[in-house]
Amino acid sequence: MMRTSFPILFVLSLILSFSYAAVQDFCVADYTAPQGPAGYSCKNPANVTVDDFVYSALGVPGNTSNMIKTGITTAFSSQFPGLNGLGVALARADLAVGGVVPMHTHHGASEIVLIIEGTITAGFISSDNKVYLKTLKKGDIMVFPQGLLHFQVNVGDTPALEFVSFSSDSPGLQILHTALFQNNLPTDLITRSTFLDTAEIKRLKALLGGTN
Amino acid sequence: MMRTSFPILFVLSLILSFSYAAVQDFCVADYTAPQGPAGYSCKNPANVTVDDFVYSALGVPGNTSNMIKTGITTAFSSQFPGLNGLGVALARADLAVGGVVPMHTHHGASEIVLIIEGTITAGFISSDNKVYLKTLKKGDIMVFPQGLLHFQVNVGDTPALEFVSFSSDSPGLQILHTALFQNNLPTDLITRSTFLDTAEIKRLKALLGGTN
Amino acid sequence: MMRTSFPILFVLSLILSFSYAAVQDFCVADYTAPQGPAGYSCKNPANVTVDDFVYSALGVPGNTSNMIKTGITTAFSSQFPGLNGLGVALARADLAVGGVVPMHTHHGASEIVLIIEGTITAGFISSDNKVYLKTLKKGDIMVFPQGLLHFQVNVGDTPALEFVSFSSDSPGLQILHTALFQNNLPTDLITRSTFLDTAEIKRLKALLGGTN
Amino acid sequence: MMRTSFPILFVLSLILSFSYAAVQDFCVADYTAPQGPAGYSCKNPANVTVDDFVYSALGVPGNTSNMIKTGITTAFSSQFPGLNGLGVALARADLAVGGVVPMHTHHGASEIVLIIEGTITAGFISSDNKVYLKTLKKGDIMVFPQGLLHFQVNVGDTPALEFVSFSSDSPGLQILHTALFQNNLPTDLITRSTFLDTAEIKRLKALLGGTN
Amino acid sequence: MMRTSFPILFVLSLILSFSYAAVQDFCVADYTAPQGPAGYSCKNPANVTVDDFVYSALGVPGNTSNMIKTGITTAFSSQFPGLNGLGVALARADLAVGGVVPMHTHHGASEIVLIIEGTITAGFISSDNKVYLKTLKKGDIMVFPQGLLHFQVNVGDTPALEFVSFSSDSPGLQILHTALFQNNLPTDLITRSTFLDTAEIKRLKALLGGTN
Amino acid sequence: MMRTSFPILFVLSLILSFSYAAVQDFCVADYTAPQGPAGYSCKNPANVTVDDFVYSALGVPGNTSNMIKTGITTAFSSQFPGLNGLGVALARADLAVGGVVPMHTHHGASEIVLIIEGTITAGFISSDNKVYLKTLKKGDIMVFPQGLLHFQVNVGDTPALEFVSFSSDSPGLQILHTALFQNNLPTDLITRSTFLDTAEIKRLKALLGGTN
Repeated sequence: MMRTSFPILFVLSLILSFSYAAVQDFCVADYTAPQGPAGYSCKNPANVTVDDFVYSALGVPGNTSNMIKTGITTAFSSQFPGLNGLGVALARADLAVGGVVPMHTHHGASEIVLIIEGTITAGFISSDNKVYLKTLKKGDIMVFPQGLLHFQVNVGDTPALEFVSFSSDSPGLQILHTALFQNNLPTDLITRSTFLDTAEIKRLKALLGGTN
Repeated sequence: MMRTSFPILFVLSLILSFSYAAVQDFCVADYTAPQGPAGYSCKNPANVTVDDFVYSALGVPGNTSNMIKTGITTAFSSQFPGLNGLGVALARADLAVGGVVPMHTHHGASEIVLIIEGTITAGFISSDNKVYLKTLKKGDIMVFPQGLLHFQVNVGDTPALEFVSFSSDSPGLQILHTALFQNNLPTDLITRSTFLDTAEIKRLKALLGGTN
Repeated sequence: MMRTSFPILFVLSLILSFSYAAVQDFCVADYTAPQGPAGYSCKNPANVTVDDFVYSALGVPGNTSNMIKTGITTAFSSQFPGLNGLGVALARADLAVGGVVPMHTHHGASEIVLIIEGTITAGFISSDNKVYLKTLKKGDIMVFPQGLLHFQVNVGDTPALEFVSFSSDSPGLQILHTALFQNNLPTDLITRSTFLDTAEIKRLKALLGGTN
Repeated sequence: MMRTSFPILFVLSLILSFSYAAVQDFCVADYTAPQGPAGYSCKNPANVTVDDFVYSALGVPGNTSNMIKTGITTAFSSQFPGLNGLGVALARADLAVGGVVPMHTHHGASEIVLIIEGTITAGFISSDNKVYLKTLKKGDIMVFPQGLLHFQVNVGDTPALEFVSFSSDSPGLQILHTALFQNNLPTDLITRSTFLDTAEIKRLKALLGGTN
Repeated sequence: MMRTSFPILFVLSLILSFSYAAVQDFCVADYTAPQGPAGYSCKNPANVTVDDFVYSALGVPGNTSNMIKTGITTAFSSQFPGLNGLGVALARADLAVGGVVPMHTHHGASEIVLIIEGTITAGFISSDNKVYLKTLKKGDIMVFPQGLLHFQVNVGDTPALEFVSFSSDSPGLQILHTALFQNNLPTDLITRSTFLDTAEIKRLKALLGGTN
Repeated sequence: MMRTSFPILFVLSLILSFSYAAVQDFCVADYTAPQGPAGYSCKNPANVTVDDFVYSALGVPGNTSNMIKTGITTAFSSQFPGLNGLGVALARADLAVGGVVPMHTHHGASEIVLIIEGTITAGFISSDNKVYLKTLKKGDIMVFPQGLLHFQVNVGDTPALEFVSFSSDSPGLQILHTALFQNNLPTDLITRSTFLDTAEIKRLKALLGGTN
């Protein structure tokens, strides 16, 4: 039905048949413009290229020469501009033998952990203080509901690699021991609000660089 | 209880009784300011008038002298500033005899089509490849769930007119044949990802102005 | 690349290549099962047909032999099961000469009115008591932001027809005069909370069937 | 396991172990930058202090020397910048003897009223014109679903104090009598859309400063 | 315009003019029916009364004879059925002299604390370990962004009373010391994921009833 | 302050200090109860175990002996009950040499693809028919905005493995060639709505098992 010797003319008329339909498929982050509650401002679409949607930093193993023997690299909308507003993000964790992803929460997202290499014990704790604990092997996935305390420990005798997926492009990340001990929150207030012993708080503040 | 000879004084005191309650009822689009994942920036409320909330372009029949014998005019937030952030939009389609609204999706909205004049066969396809097909007459409405392929064909012997409503002010619009054949997506990749014959792809690229 | 004399076998293997992908495209309302904050329970997909997505009641002019000289017919998810959860709804209003869609709000949706026939004065009032008022002709559309008081009056000398679109499948509808005067809300409380004169309240309660 | 004489080194390595994890916990309003449908732009996090999250104006009793014998003070995101995007707000109402929070709606939020002092009759009206009415005493709470007309009256013989909580940081506030009578909405249109008597409308316009 | 001696007839015709408009204003929880991700099933509207929207338990001071010297009473949708799906909730905390609301998070809501009596030091910690700390007096409010660790301590020499408002009707509540020490989470895993000393963990498990 | 020889008593009193705070952290799918627009009904929390949050099927390579030379396994809430309502899902794709993830859309989610092994050319097409195309190597990620056509092809000479993450636990999946050719959608309607040649449509219907 489209036999014609004037395809270009048809193309033009087709384009004209849809008036004004400029629409927004994505909102690549412009880190230099104002940010709002829903995310970053959008980069001018004329300047968007495929490279805004591709990110390579998760291909590099994280450095595990640290206190937690684990290297963690995030691909949130604050680093990967193409994610802005799209409601999904990733991170990579390399856990050396004995490595740990410490007790933490994501205030803005649920998380799925996927084990690529190694054997990892993972757990989360629910509002009624119940523990959900499982040792995961390669290919297993486990979900941690939004905002609940959770952690992972490499319990094998080889390095482990995991990727984690989030239900937000800005999941947030609050690590328990740094939140408590790596700032100037007064020791007395920590004691009263957590029931931890003062000496223990002082020990961890010294270890982690906290004051007060 | 409101007998008074000093209404102005009461008015002033009433106004004073509500402190600070400047609130946001709407966010008329300012197309010159940054856009974010939730939509356009808001125009200064002091400059908003009723005309920001009224749009007349849908009153004009679309031009049907084109390949699809159909004229489509949209009233999305990208054209009609008062819609910004309000979660609803409209469009108008004039289908000449034999006209078609080609197979397409709206990634950001469900749609209701309303038949004003004519007889239209409409359909959508679900994720499990099931076809939902119906011939609609004047006054009928049909809903297409968000993001699923759908289309309409004027199957009558008179022109048809329909209005479509969307569950977003920025529904998006991806038309299948222009998405596949009106750009530089390599023919080999189209063949491998759609199972269409290479010759057919080349025919449609020629017709629609695609390359590669 | 798809040359084969065993297409059925290929089809089977293709189906097997996607494991478990049963997904939810829609949630047609089952009015006999529990309802929740997000809408009605879903009908068993095996029993869903195209007729769940098509609705014809808006094709019938509403009866205008009433106090408001207007007939209004809604297609909300409470009548049109295919809309459930899809975030969009429609209604039709037939306004006889002198007819009115009385002052009302939709607590759950913004609305676009579309004039099909006639001349209608429409208006809404914002939180800061500003009036947005316009006389609309055939083909014009006007948007009323969510939850604000609005109304339409047929100001022409011919009947008018309009369709309205909502940003929710369950927009809600609170009509001012019936909310105030067609129930048992004590007259004294109405006086105190609205500053309307007691006699006027009693007149309207008598007219509309209110008590107390 | 953390015995070390080089805590600082450990701290540094710990910080390095989390790459790029700058995330958004909050979005304190910058009233000088563009506003969008999701709220105000975010203040530069480097300039945010605890005072952005604290607000003291609700500690001051409102002035009740006015027509409604009630003083109302709001803490919405338009006054309290720390609320921006967080989905919750407060207000305070001081009702003198005989005071009233007049019939009104919040287009963007449900509300809980909490009685701190006094005896208050509160009510809301549903879409089907049913009245939900209750006299509340100190410590009682009552919820008003989003967008429905509601009011409170001090029915005791002492002053009353209440706080109200909202499900949005920008709830909106449309007060019925000022929306109808404190602007230039033509009397004829009010009559036709509300069935109120013309003389009564003119009386209230005179009282409240309306015109037309 | 509504002069008539047949108001009942007008009422009937008015009702008939709005066809089918049964709509959902609220969804009072039916705790005996299935629950879904958006909340509880709705109680049959015919059985809903004003008492479903009123709750009195917050009027009773909480018992402070406990380890935290604080009594906390919640009005979440799990106790107060009228809140279901409405996105707002309250709680009350009575803090004796020296009382504390221990370090905790709400995974599903931001919170505003309102001081009714007493002097309270409140704080929250952001993702970058920064402390936002303030001593609040009567009438002050402070907001804690969703999912971040926060606490309050009565630092005065009189009892304190506060009410807290949430941006969800199901905010969740994870208390740090009970999450860590009042269950069977193995001591070794706590040590490795929090860097707390084993002896300290065992002391707190003994105090709080934890095992393992 | 927590010195005590009666820890059990303290534990009891602590529990009593928080009245009624049963809250919902998660909503594990009960596939036998009603489903609604927001997802499946919740399993009785008393019957929930850690195994509801762990899923192992993604650990098994998919069978690639099929037309697309690719095996795809999904972990959506329809298979993995712990995901219900949490807004995130995963899938695994094994692509043999020459394998392809055919052109498709997810109507309900954005997607991030993560390359674990091999070399994959991936692309998506925007609403304005622009192609975003990139060849990805191990460790690269690419995001496809919600609802847009996208595909992946193994362009290397070794098998490839990828995991994909979604911004919804029920992303949906519409595969272009099966949507068009593996059902009873009449050939004439396909021709008219896609501009594909009738012979080509019949060829693909024969190949894929379509009729009409």
